[in-house]
Amino acid sequence: MPAIITLLTDYGSGDSYVAELKAVLLSRAVATLVDVTHQIPPGDVPAAQYVLSRVWHRFPPGTVHLVVVDPGVGTGRRALAAEAGGHGFVAPDNGLLSPLPADARFVELPVPAGIAPSFHGRDLFAPAAARLAAGTALTQLGRLVTDPRRAPLPVPHSDGAAVVGEVIYVDRFGTLVSNIPAGLVEPGVRIKVGDTEVGTLRRTFGDVARGQLVAFVGSGETVEIAVRDGSAARTLGVGVGAAVRA
Amino acid sequence: MPAIITLLTDYGSGDSYVAELKAVLLSRAVATLVDVTHQIPPGDVPAAQYVLSRVWHRFPPGTVHLVVVDPGVGTGRRALAAEAGGHGFVAPDNGLLSPLPADARFVELPVPAGIAPSFHGRDLFAPAAARLAAGTALTQLGRLVTDPRRAPLPVPHSDGAAVVGEVIYVDRFGTLVSNIPAGLVEPGVRIKVGDTEVGTLRRTFGDVARGQLVAFVGSGETVEIAVRDGSAARTLGVGVGAAVRA
Amino acid sequence: MPAIITLLTDYGSGDSYVAELKAVLLSRAVATLVDVTHQIPPGDVPAAQYVLSRVWHRFPPGTVHLVVVDPGVGTGRRALAAEAGGHGFVAPDNGLLSPLPADARFVELPVPAGIAPSFHGRDLFAPAAARLAAGTALTQLGRLVTDPRRAPLPVPHSDGAAVVGEVIYVDRFGTLVSNIPAGLVEPGVRIKVGDTEVGTLRRTFGDVARGQLVAFVGSGETVEIAVRDGSAARTLGVGVGAAVRA
Repeated sequence: MPAIITLLTDYGSGDSYVAELKAVLLSRAVATLVDVTHQIPPGDVPAAQYVLSRVWHRFPPGTVHLVVVDPGVGTGRRALAAEAGGHGFVAPDNGLLSPLPADARFVELPVPAGIAPSFHGRDLFAPAAARLAAGTALTQLGRLVTDPRRAPLPVPHSDGAAVVGEVIYVDRFGTLVSNIPAGLVEPGVRIKVGDTEVGTLRRTFGDVARGQLVAFVGSGETVEIAVRDGSAARTLGVGVGAAVRA
Repeated sequence: MPAIITLLTDYGSGDSYVAELKAVLLSRAVATLVDVTHQIPPGDVPAAQYVLSRVWHRFPPGTVHLVVVDPGVGTGRRALAAEAGGHGFVAPDNGLLSPLPADARFVELPVPAGIAPSFHGRDLFAPAAARLAAGTALTQLGRLVTDPRRAPLPVPHSDGAAVVGEVIYVDRFGTLVSNIPAGLVEPGVRIKVGDTEVGTLRRTFGDVARGQLVAFVGSGETVEIAVRDGSAARTLGVGVGAAVRA
Repeated sequence: MPAIITLLTDYGSGDSYVAELKAVLLSRAVATLVDVTHQIPPGDVPAAQYVLSRVWHRFPPGTVHLVVVDPGVGTGRRALAAEAGGHGFVAPDNGLLSPLPADARFVELPVPAGIAPSFHGRDLFAPAAARLAAGTALTQLGRLVTDPRRAPLPVPHSDGAAVVGEVIYVDRFGTLVSNIPAGLVEPGVRIKVGDTEVGTLRRTFGDVARGQLVAFVGSGETVEIAVRDGSAARTLGVGVGAAVRA
C-alpha cells in the first residue's frame, strides 16, 4: 500500500505552487497525496498548528505530513524533519511542529546549494517528505536536533472564579473554537465570550433556535461558540484572541 | 482496483474538517478519494442536491458518495445510507438524497454513543462510507427505511402560454441554470428571465458577441442563461428562484 | 504504476464541473489525478499558460495534462491533443499550449456529434486525456496539425539603458512575477516597477524588514517583486502588464 503524504500550507489553491510540490512528491515516491488545506492565512503559523493538531494523528501510522507556512523561508531559520507516533513530518523550525508530543524526534535538514531561496517547500521539504514516505530513516535526513522551536498555542488558566481561555481558531462557519477543554468545564457553568453571556453548554447547535448563540463541546474536544445557521464571529464581532470564560 | 469515494460537503476547504473525513476513510478502506466540492454554501441542501444530481451517475458503479450538508447534525434527524444503480450513498435524512431514483434502497445508520454531536461527517458518515466502499452490504449498516425525506428540486409547469420554470443553480461563471429540460422547449420560442427577453436558444455562449445575453441547452440538459465572457447573474441581478419562461 | 493526469481549468471548485471531468477520467483510465488549479480567472488564457509553463515539466514523463480555459467552447476553434518531452496534453487551440517546446507534435481532435457544445472539457478533452493516459498513440486521436495557435507570453526587451519587461502574473501573496529572467539582470542593477524603485536584487523576502518592498529571483527563475509579510500588488497598486525595469 502506498504511503500517505498530507500537505498543509498557506500557498492558496490558485497558483502553481501546490502542483509543483506534488510533481516533486510523485516523481520521487509512490504515495497517496491528501490536501489538508492550502488556505492558511499567509504566514499564520498558529492557525496551521491548530489544524495540524486536529488531523495528523487521525491518519494511519506511516503517514508523512508536509507542513509549510514559512514566512522566514531562505533566512537562517532551520528546516526540520521529525518523527512521532509512527508519523513523519517536515516543516520549517518556526513553531509549526509544536503540536507534536514530547517524545518526538527531530533532525535538521541540510540546505542544498542552488535551491530557490523563496521556495523551500518545493526544493527542500517536498524532497525530504518523499524520502520519508519511501522509507528512509529520519536520521539519514540530517543531524539530530534537541531544541526545536516550541511555540504552543495558548492554554487556559483559572482566575479563581472561572476558567479563562481564549478563541484560538475561527472556522468557515464563523464558529469560535476556544482552548478550554471539555473536562475543565463544571456542570451548569455559563459560558462567556468577552462580555457576552452565551449560556450553559448544549450538545450541538441544533439544540437552539435559528440565529441563536450556543456553546457546546466541539469535535476538537474544546468549548466552541456558534450561531445556529449563522456566524458567531460576525454576530459577536470577535475572532482569535477573544477571551472565553467557563 | 480500489473503490472510489466522492466527497460533497459545505465544510469549505480552509479548515481541518475535510482532512479529518479523509483520515477516517483512508484508515478504514482502500479507496480513491474524489472531492466533488466542499464549497456548498453553509446549509444549502438544494445546491448540494443539484450538484449531486449532475455527478453521481457519471462515476463507475461501485462508487460511494459521501454527502454531508447537515444543519441538523446531532438532532433527531436520521442518518442514512443508500444504494441506487450500483452506487452507495451516505447522507443525513434532510432531502439531500432526493435525486436518487425511485428504486433506491435506504437504511438508517445507528448513532454510536460518544461520537461528536456536531461532527457526524467524521464520526458517523465517513465510517459508514468506508464500510460500503470495503464491500459491506447495505443492510448490514442499519435497518431498512421506506420513507426517506424527499424534497425534490422544483419542476417547471405550463401556464398555457409558456413553460414556466425557475433558476435552480448559479455557477462560478454567473450562468443561470434553469430547471426547464431541453425537450420541453418548442423550436423558435423566446426565453425570458423575469421580465428580460433573452432570445431563442443558441448552441453555446460563443454564438453571441462578448457581453451579450444568451440562452442555450447547458451540459446538464436544461436551459441555461449566460453572458458571454460575463455573468448573467450580475447583469440581470437575479439568482436561484428567478422565473424562467420558455 | 498508474499514469498521472493533471487538471488545469477555470472551472472553480464550487460547482459540479471538475467532478464531472474526474468521473469521465476515472471511468476510462486507471490514473492518479492531480489538480493543478481550477481558480484561473474565467477565460484568462495567459494566466493558465504561465501556470502550465511552471508545472508540466516537473511531473514524470508519461503524465497527461488536461488544460481547459475555453471561452470559445463550441465555436469553430479547434480542439488539440499534443505530445512534448514524453508528456501528453489536451487543450483548446487558443494559445494555451504556447509554453510547449518547438518540437511538440499536435493533432486535431474530431468533435463527436451530440456532445454538449458548452462543455467540451467533459465530453471531448477528458475522454482524449483518458485515452492518452491509457497509452493510445497521439496520432490515433486525430490528424496532425502543424499550425497550432501560438500566443506566447510577452518577453522583455532592452531600451539601451535597461532591460524592460512586465508583470506577467500575480500570486496569492500579491507578489509580482515579471518576465525578466535572472540571467538578464546585471549585478548591482536597481529594479523598478513603474516609477517605483525597489532596490537591487536580494536573495529572498526574508532579507528585508517587514512591510518593505524587495526584488529577488523567484522560484520560476525570473525577477519578482514582493512586500515582506504583505502584498506588493496592493502596496504598489499594480498588476499584470505593469512595466518592470532591471
